[in-house]
Amino acid sequence: MISIKRSDIKVPLDVPEEARETYVENYMEITNSTGRLMLFAGDQKVEHLNDDFYGEEAAADDNDPEHLFRIAHQGKMGVFATQLGLIARYGMDYTDVPYLVKINSKSHLVPTEQMDPFSNQWYDIPQIAEFRDNSKLKILGVGYTIYLGSEYEADMLAQAAQIVYDAHQYGMLTVLWIYPRGAAVADEKDPHLIAGATGVGACLNADFVKVNYPKKEGHSSAEIFKEAVFAAGRTKVVCAGGSSDDPEAFLKKLHDQIHVSGAMGNATGRNIHQKPLDEAVRMCNAIYAITIEDATVEEALMIYMGK
Amino acid sequence: MISIKRSDIKVPLDVPEEARETYVENYMEITNSTGRLMLFAGDQKVEHLNDDFYGEEAAADDNDPEHLFRIAHQGKMGVFATQLGLIARYGMDYTDVPYLVKINSKSHLVPTEQMDPFSNQWYDIPQIAEFRDNSKLKILGVGYTIYLGSEYEADMLAQAAQIVYDAHQYGMLTVLWIYPRGAAVADEKDPHLIAGATGVGACLNADFVKVNYPKKEGHSSAEIFKEAVFAAGRTKVVCAGGSSDDPEAFLKKLHDQIHVSGAMGNATGRNIHQKPLDEAVRMCNAIYAITIEDATVEEALMIYMGK
Amino acid sequence: MISIKRSDIKVPLDVPEEARETYVENYMEITNSTGRLMLFAGDQKVEHLNDDFYGEEAAADDNDPEHLFRIAHQGKMGVFATQLGLIARYGMDYTDVPYLVKINSKSHLVPTEQMDPFSNQWYDIPQIAEFRDNSKLKILGVGYTIYLGSEYEADMLAQAAQIVYDAHQYGMLTVLWIYPRGAAVADEKDPHLIAGATGVGACLNADFVKVNYPKKEGHSSAEIFKEAVFAAGRTKVVCAGGSSDDPEAFLKKLHDQIHVSGAMGNATGRNIHQKPLDEAVRMCNAIYAITIEDATVEEALMIYMGK
Amino acid sequence: MISIKRSDIKVPLDVPEEARETYVENYMEITNSTGRLMLFAGDQKVEHLNDDFYGEEAAADDNDPEHLFRIAHQGKMGVFATQLGLIARYGMDYTDVPYLVKINSKSHLVPTEQMDPFSNQWYDIPQIAEFRDNSKLKILGVGYTIYLGSEYEADMLAQAAQIVYDAHQYGMLTVLWIYPRGAAVADEKDPHLIAGATGVGACLNADFVKVNYPKKEGHSSAEIFKEAVFAAGRTKVVCAGGSSDDPEAFLKKLHDQIHVSGAMGNATGRNIHQKPLDEAVRMCNAIYAITIEDATVEEALMIYMGK
Amino acid sequence: MISIKRSDIKVPLDVPEEARETYVENYMEITNSTGRLMLFAGDQKVEHLNDDFYGEEAAADDNDPEHLFRIAHQGKMGVFATQLGLIARYGMDYTDVPYLVKINSKSHLVPTEQMDPFSNQWYDIPQIAEFRDNSKLKILGVGYTIYLGSEYEADMLAQAAQIVYDAHQYGMLTVLWIYPRGAAVADEKDPHLIAGATGVGACLNADFVKVNYPKKEGHSSAEIFKEAVFAAGRTKVVCAGGSSDDPEAFLKKLHDQIHVSGAMGNATGRNIHQKPLDEAVRMCNAIYAITIEDATVEEALMIYMGK
Repeated sequence: MISIKRSDIKVPLDVPEEARETYVENYMEITNSTGRLMLFAGDQKVEHLNDDFYGEEAAADDNDPEHLFRIAHQGKMGVFATQLGLIARYGMDYTDVPYLVKINSKSHLVPTEQMDPFSNQWYDIPQIAEFRDNSKLKILGVGYTIYLGSEYEADMLAQAAQIVYDAHQYGMLTVLWIYPRGAAVADEKDPHLIAGATGVGACLNADFVKVNYPKKEGHSSAEIFKEAVFAAGRTKVVCAGGSSDDPEAFLKKLHDQIHVSGAMGNATGRNIHQKPLDEAVRMCNAIYAITIEDATVEEALMIYMGK
Repeated sequence: MISIKRSDIKVPLDVPEEARETYVENYMEITNSTGRLMLFAGDQKVEHLNDDFYGEEAAADDNDPEHLFRIAHQGKMGVFATQLGLIARYGMDYTDVPYLVKINSKSHLVPTEQMDPFSNQWYDIPQIAEFRDNSKLKILGVGYTIYLGSEYEADMLAQAAQIVYDAHQYGMLTVLWIYPRGAAVADEKDPHLIAGATGVGACLNADFVKVNYPKKEGHSSAEIFKEAVFAAGRTKVVCAGGSSDDPEAFLKKLHDQIHVSGAMGNATGRNIHQKPLDEAVRMCNAIYAITIEDATVEEALMIYMGK
Repeated sequence: MISIKRSDIKVPLDVPEEARETYVENYMEITNSTGRLMLFAGDQKVEHLNDDFYGEEAAADDNDPEHLFRIAHQGKMGVFATQLGLIARYGMDYTDVPYLVKINSKSHLVPTEQMDPFSNQWYDIPQIAEFRDNSKLKILGVGYTIYLGSEYEADMLAQAAQIVYDAHQYGMLTVLWIYPRGAAVADEKDPHLIAGATGVGACLNADFVKVNYPKKEGHSSAEIFKEAVFAAGRTKVVCAGGSSDDPEAFLKKLHDQIHVSGAMGNATGRNIHQKPLDEAVRMCNAIYAITIEDATVEEALMIYMGK
Repeated sequence: MISIKRSDIKVPLDVPEEARETYVENYMEITNSTGRLMLFAGDQKVEHLNDDFYGEEAAADDNDPEHLFRIAHQGKMGVFATQLGLIARYGMDYTDVPYLVKINSKSHLVPTEQMDPFSNQWYDIPQIAEFRDNSKLKILGVGYTIYLGSEYEADMLAQAAQIVYDAHQYGMLTVLWIYPRGAAVADEKDPHLIAGATGVGACLNADFVKVNYPKKEGHSSAEIFKEAVFAAGRTKVVCAGGSSDDPEAFLKKLHDQIHVSGAMGNATGRNIHQKPLDEAVRMCNAIYAITIEDATVEEALMIYMGK
Repeated sequence: MISIKRSDIKVPLDVPEEARETYVENYMEITNSTGRLMLFAGDQKVEHLNDDFYGEEAAADDNDPEHLFRIAHQGKMGVFATQLGLIARYGMDYTDVPYLVKINSKSHLVPTEQMDPFSNQWYDIPQIAEFRDNSKLKILGVGYTIYLGSEYEADMLAQAAQIVYDAHQYGMLTVLWIYPRGAAVADEKDPHLIAGATGVGACLNADFVKVNYPKKEGHSSAEIFKEAVFAAGRTKVVCAGGSSDDPEAFLKKLHDQIHVSGAMGNATGRNIHQKPLDEAVRMCNAIYAITIEDATVEEALMIYMGK
């Protein structure tokens, strides 16, 4: 099992003296003292409305929002990311869970062909800090999505810059979801473009940047993803999990992202929560084993299968 | 008659310590100590201009705005929702009525084909709290409408998030009206889409979310509405009453919404106020009987008929 | 001569305790202690540029902005409404005149076919209150125009709500000009639509709402205007005077508006100021006689004719 | 030589008691104690980019921005109007010059056919007042351009109203440049439209309004300009100089504007600064002689010719 | 070697008394006491995404953002310009480097044909000053890009004016990148247009303005660039380096810009950082030699070649 020491953490210089201690503690906790992030993504109730939670692809358990909290409570992870509303409604019964507040969200109703995507900030950081204090929950950080190449890119870059800067004033960590999208974007999975996205994350001072796994005809995604990991420099790169996949293939992918591409973790949603509770928890633990405990794909698969 | 105790109420965690008591009191009062909400909706003078109040469908009484207040005063209900202006003009003569201030409103003049809908915030919450204090009225909460899938969704989601957050700082309750509408929305009554809407309400931390009753060829609305109720989790779902309907059919529908679908109340406007005062009050009481007193449809119908 | 007592005035509940006295005084003064409003409208130098003041329809006197102040000084009226700029330039020589500051204005250059109308707020209310104090003038209230059904309706509704709310904090009265206009509005004079407009004025908490006189083929305007008066409830309705008209017909119309339709006054501009000073003052006094002194059309006409 | 006394100045009523003295001093200084304004306009480096300063029409001296300051220093004038940036760079060497800060500016690159013009505010008035104090320069007032009839008119009217109001709080004078322009404007030089523009300046409480000289087939510009001068009332009208002209014709035009039309001065740029320094200074003094010293055209021409 | 004394610096008059000392120190340091600026431009990770850092044109070293810092640390220069995020992540290991924070940035994904360019402000100046204090780094100034002639020019001019004004309040220097771009701009390299751009920089009170080197068929760029240098007056002009070039030709160009055109420095990015570290450092030093040490092209070339 890999591990880092508090002194290994390079605190970004916009964190003021009085918040450095908090930043370091949050970093250790969110990475389970490894420098790697296992993020459980649960913001889809806005992003995809009820599509991910009801129907053939989702287990019946998943229609109840509390399913997400049950998983976060029983499974192992670095942080559970969702909207403030859900945290405010369920947090009192799940005080042990480490949370990350997703600051912006939009539905997928308006298609890109109709209008380029814009996801607007719902709260400012002083409110999140106030919520952290009022709720007494472990709010370790905040998340924000940027659609790079959208006609509204200018708004989102400015909001993201402010959110990262302000979060750091309170010692909170920041994860930027950066997805190229819009009329100007021909191929959202282009590896070079995704490397552009992670570089933007670095310039915005994100602690972690979450991107899609690149895809290019005739190339190994794990190999071509290296460009993005390098381009981010000291900002750490994690990959979005995407839609539900075959468990073994999925776990192999995560293992490759870390051990081939050099990613520092992953962000998984549907591959976890679309399963019944028990299976979801086991998947959680399998991902955790790979990300945090340096397990092999086989070991992780055994965990997932409950063996 | 069902009932809840103060300790049954899960106060959302963004409500600060000093406002929890107020929140619980407001919750008990607005739900008549049952956890269920009977909301009398009277915001149509902006939303539908004078269409709902004058003409064949409306009783002559309804052309005077005071009609709404007379009903709210004589009838039983959880809360009367309308714009601040009307409350400010009539409240001094109706101090016993429990009020909910509808924060945004728009006219229906510009059709969706011309421009996607945007309903803009008229007041901020500190003003509503100030009004509550200056007026000494029972202002229990605030309401806000979101048109999900509109090109202006981003603005409305952000305003709604701020309104809920801020209202909770004062212990006020929040009701979000969420209607899918815009060029991108093919079927506003699609049950899956409405379940998306209630889920968004939950993510926005609404105490109650008001949606339209779903409709799908060959399906029972009461059955397909369950998806939306489940998707909202701890946020409670109430159904908009819609245009005037046959009383028995209407009461049966409300009963089904609660006892089949699992809704926690309803929000009725035209089915009440388009009737002459006496009849409107009896309809009010009939709805109240179903919602709050667990009456059967037959019992409610007797109340409506004044027997 | 009709009259009201201070205790007859229902002070809206957003007026704080400490401003109630001022509100009542302003209400008594602006209605000349009758509850009825005679407003002299002089905001056309922006709204219609120099069209109303120069050319065949206007007397030579009218090209000098001071003409408006001379009329306001010599004639009888409830209040003179114009932009802050003119008041600031002439007020020192006309300290006896009661003023209402028109807060927003636009030119008529861009036609509705090119772009839906938007009239933007020029000042905020604390500035108007500061101006009232610095100028020591009798600033009794403020006015604001809304184009209902414009694509910019959302902006204007929000500005209007804030202006009314804020003005009431200082005890100032509010008059909303509400005109349906825009690509979505087929008939600006439709009586039902104008009733919608007065209802919106009520929901916005306006003290007075100024609308156009409805017109419908085969109907008496005075009769069909009743719908709008009823729809406004406790918000009082006054009619815009429109372009210059035959004096007798014009005075008859105003008399009908009050005695048939139930309007609580009128707002006249061109029918007064396009006349030479002496005639303008007599027209002013004739309108005053009808509105405030309950004169007959014949009596008013005598005043106008200087007999 | 005409002159006014301090007591002749009607201080607008938005100027607070404590700033009246400053306002009067600024007014006396900017009008050289005559009530007439000779403004040297030097804001074209943004408005026209380098077109006015380099090429066949401009003397070689004019390519150096300091040329403007040399003229302002050596020539006689009421005030030199330019952007804050230039004043901040050269003011330390030209402390005797009276300055007016042009608050907004735009380039002429985007043609009206592509987009209606919008010129955005660069600074707010408290910053200008702070600059006045920090620089210790004679900053007598501020200027702002409105494109009346532009689709962005609403923004510019609101900014102008705020700028005038705020400037008056500090006793600073205000000059509004008002030009009808945009897709809706067929004839920018129409005398009636220009009279509309000066009337708008009055309603906005400008001390001076700068407009283009009207032009109408078969009419004398000096005659038809009277309408605009009358329409402005107590707000004083000055004419923009326009592109370089024959000196005698130009001086005759200025003389007519004052003595035929009733203008209270002029605002000249290119007709001064496109000349070599010595000639520019003489032109300045010639204009000054007409405007401030009531010289005849012939006397002024002698000054210009250095005789 | 050329040099200036502290007393040679004309501090712009918006710099308040208490910040003049800091301004002078920053000016001396950023120009290495010569009045000339050698700026190392490293903001392309947003502006060009990963295009400049990965692929045939870039050395392998360049894919790691730290490459920029290694160059800035080992090479000679006046200032290293990049986004706050990168400075915050690497600054603790490169405390000796003089920094300039690039305040706005956009990606190049949306082409001008789709939408005119808008680059939005990410931070305000008080945040940059706070960052300077918290980081204890040598933050000497800030940079901002304006696309002159864009439909969003109005927003960028206003942001730029505020940024320069505010930066000067803290004694920080300002560099404006001004590029004509948009549907209205036919030729971005037109010398007269670029002279317009530098003039705008002067009016905005920039200390330095960075423009593209003009290009015109049949003319020497060095000659035609003079217009822009003159037009800027006391604001100093530096040229953007552009894409990678033949070293000798590139150094010759920089030498000409200074010695023929009169530029006061240069701003180079790709011509430095696309080279391997050692070569990049030598190129840096070669440019420094020309800019700061008045070296000949031959001398600089020897430095570049490591001889």
